[in-house]
Amino acid sequence: MTARVVDFETVDLRFPTSSALDGSDAMNPAPDYSAAYLVLRTDAGDGHGFTFTIGRGNELALAAAEAVAGRAVGLRVDEIAADLGGFARHLAADSQLRWLGPDKGVIHLGTAAVVNAAWDLVARIEGKPVWKLLSDMSPRQIVDLVDWRYLRDELTPEAALEMLEQAGSGRAERESLIRREGYPAYTTSAGWLGYDDEKLRRLCQEAVDAGWDSVKLKVGADLDDDRRRCRIAREVLGPDRRLMIDANQTLGVREAIDWHRALAEFDIWWFEEPTSPDDVLGHATIQRAIAPTHVATGEHAHNAVMFKQFLQAEAIGICQIDACRLAGVNEAVATILLAAARGVPVCPHAGGVGLCELVQHLSIFDYVAVTGRLDNRVVEYVDHLHEHFTDPVRMRDGRYLPPERPGYSAQIKRESLERYRFPDGAAWA
Amino acid sequence: MTARVVDFETVDLRFPTSSALDGSDAMNPAPDYSAAYLVLRTDAGDGHGFTFTIGRGNELALAAAEAVAGRAVGLRVDEIAADLGGFARHLAADSQLRWLGPDKGVIHLGTAAVVNAAWDLVARIEGKPVWKLLSDMSPRQIVDLVDWRYLRDELTPEAALEMLEQAGSGRAERESLIRREGYPAYTTSAGWLGYDDEKLRRLCQEAVDAGWDSVKLKVGADLDDDRRRCRIAREVLGPDRRLMIDANQTLGVREAIDWHRALAEFDIWWFEEPTSPDDVLGHATIQRAIAPTHVATGEHAHNAVMFKQFLQAEAIGICQIDACRLAGVNEAVATILLAAARGVPVCPHAGGVGLCELVQHLSIFDYVAVTGRLDNRVVEYVDHLHEHFTDPVRMRDGRYLPPERPGYSAQIKRESLERYRFPDGAAWA
Repeated sequence: MTARVVDFETVDLRFPTSSALDGSDAMNPAPDYSAAYLVLRTDAGDGHGFTFTIGRGNELALAAAEAVAGRAVGLRVDEIAADLGGFARHLAADSQLRWLGPDKGVIHLGTAAVVNAAWDLVARIEGKPVWKLLSDMSPRQIVDLVDWRYLRDELTPEAALEMLEQAGSGRAERESLIRREGYPAYTTSAGWLGYDDEKLRRLCQEAVDAGWDSVKLKVGADLDDDRRRCRIAREVLGPDRRLMIDANQTLGVREAIDWHRALAEFDIWWFEEPTSPDDVLGHATIQRAIAPTHVATGEHAHNAVMFKQFLQAEAIGICQIDACRLAGVNEAVATILLAAARGVPVCPHAGGVGLCELVQHLSIFDYVAVTGRLDNRVVEYVDHLHEHFTDPVRMRDGRYLPPERPGYSAQIKRESLERYRFPDGAAWA
Repeated sequence: MTARVVDFETVDLRFPTSSALDGSDAMNPAPDYSAAYLVLRTDAGDGHGFTFTIGRGNELALAAAEAVAGRAVGLRVDEIAADLGGFARHLAADSQLRWLGPDKGVIHLGTAAVVNAAWDLVARIEGKPVWKLLSDMSPRQIVDLVDWRYLRDELTPEAALEMLEQAGSGRAERESLIRREGYPAYTTSAGWLGYDDEKLRRLCQEAVDAGWDSVKLKVGADLDDDRRRCRIAREVLGPDRRLMIDANQTLGVREAIDWHRALAEFDIWWFEEPTSPDDVLGHATIQRAIAPTHVATGEHAHNAVMFKQFLQAEAIGICQIDACRLAGVNEAVATILLAAARGVPVCPHAGGVGLCELVQHLSIFDYVAVTGRLDNRVVEYVDHLHEHFTDPVRMRDGRYLPPERPGYSAQIKRESLERYRFPDGAAWA
């Protein structure tokens, strides 16, 4: 029998995180971390995937995932596994659905859930975690994952191939190093905007005690508050640990430059999401003004065309891909290649529900098979909601230990799916 | 009694246009023109609005419109009328829904339906068509319609105010001129990609006979076909009428430049949507290469931040706002102000379902109250589906005659709502 995709199951999963102001920032005062969760059912087993939202509207992301997943039903699993690039392009090729984006918004979020589920499926069949599946691919196979239509003016497939071939020789050594030491990370858990000064100080101290050397604070609502909070953080961190700030898009271009100037004395490593995530040229203006502080953005950069431009305009010093805002693994790989060609570090956005579980695979692949570099590379870490995953992240001394189990670490426990299903799970009833 | 928004009604409206290949282009081979239609019910009467899609996924736009419209229920109508800018910002201010965009995709399309319905409502109450309501506003009132947060680095509210005050003196004369002569237009009805050469030639001749002096062809699938089709069109149009081409995003940056070169002998006035609508820098590269042909884009430019950048990068010579891709009248006004400050003509995207009905209001306002210019300004016209509207566009000699009835010309006849409701209307059953 030829195994095919036979069906899919979806769950509108929401966690009532707003009750404790976990995750609060200047743009998003009270998020309920949520996942539009999707299981691809096939004759060869299940694949688990999701996209991330912050509460209301999760039902729209779920409906979009269902519309896109319909295009996968009936496809042969061996053909999906042999051409994950073609599979991703097939999902995106319904011109009527494409109109709703194109390549952005709810339909793109929904596509991510399906693409991520397919990668989980294929990795399980291959018996490898996704980072290892990716890292074992040939340069040609990696290049073929990408939709090059709008990217060739920045990077040709041929140039990407050459870059990957040059990186090929050291793969085994780098894989051993990651297995021994893990991948570097930073923590955002200390700095949510809704936390008071005492809690901020305590959490910064706990972060230092736990071995973290990079900490990020939320800013952007009130400049006096931000100066006071940055002073507290810098006092606790001392002069040698890295402090980053994140305004979550609340500022205009000139306002962001002024904001940074008022905080520069606290030695800011990067300034994240200073303004509209669509404003490539605005970010470039800010980057010129605040160097050597890096501009960082990407959790709301909706596709590889946006990252292409951020890189072309020299608008960012840190490239923050998101595993679900981009249309899943394939578009993340595209962006990792673009950033590598420009020498810009990829430091993925994480947190939320399960974003840490996903992006660790992408960054380990980035190191093992693409750049071979760890300098100025850190994956975000937030200590929320990992207990709901069957293969949660494992941290040691502020580093991600590489996942060992097959798949994309995307599976949520059955009891969590039932308890947090909206609106009828026990957590909401 | 204080009138309030009491409720809303929605209809998933789809027209089976794909059966005749009307509207076919290189990216969208078979669209079913659709509207996520919304009626705001208030104690002071109804307001009608919609957003436009091309078929599958219209249910997502509708669900988004419903999520956003919930924020309007209970608001006072007099307060909405007195501060339409504040109303639009209130709709967009749900941070959980905002995450789904932000300011793009399905949630932005849904917001457009609600904002457009509110403008229809207020214009009916004032007894004016929307273009007249807008044109009678003071410069300060117009400036207050706009969300300036991300725009000030390009245009300050103060500079916009000064520009509008300078335009104030000639308003009455310009309004008379438009009432006498109408607003210039061009036709896309001749050039859909699915039409054969004979039909193309016949429709071009009919366009010439009907007084059109500007005609647009769809291109971008096959260059030999496009050369043959452009030759036919240019033969029929003669040397003095304007020919535009539209690739509907199918090409890469360098490919678009080559494509234009192969068609340049047919004297192309503008080249529309040559590549990804997100690629500001790519459009700038194309514009530099193909001048004096203008690059035109905007029907998929999702917000004013994108238009700001297209203008800043000198990436477009023609600014094609869309009445539903942007979040309704307010963001269209923002973009009209940005384009006016740069001297770039606004030539709105239209066609589909009811886009002609809406954008005529915006262009007439642009002329009467903002730029006072008609040179190189044309509104798209497509002769589809006007019969379903209670106040359809009226054309004379290739020009739009200004709407005279109160509202935004957005209301669809009750019998059409019933017949084309998906999936249970008689047209689909």
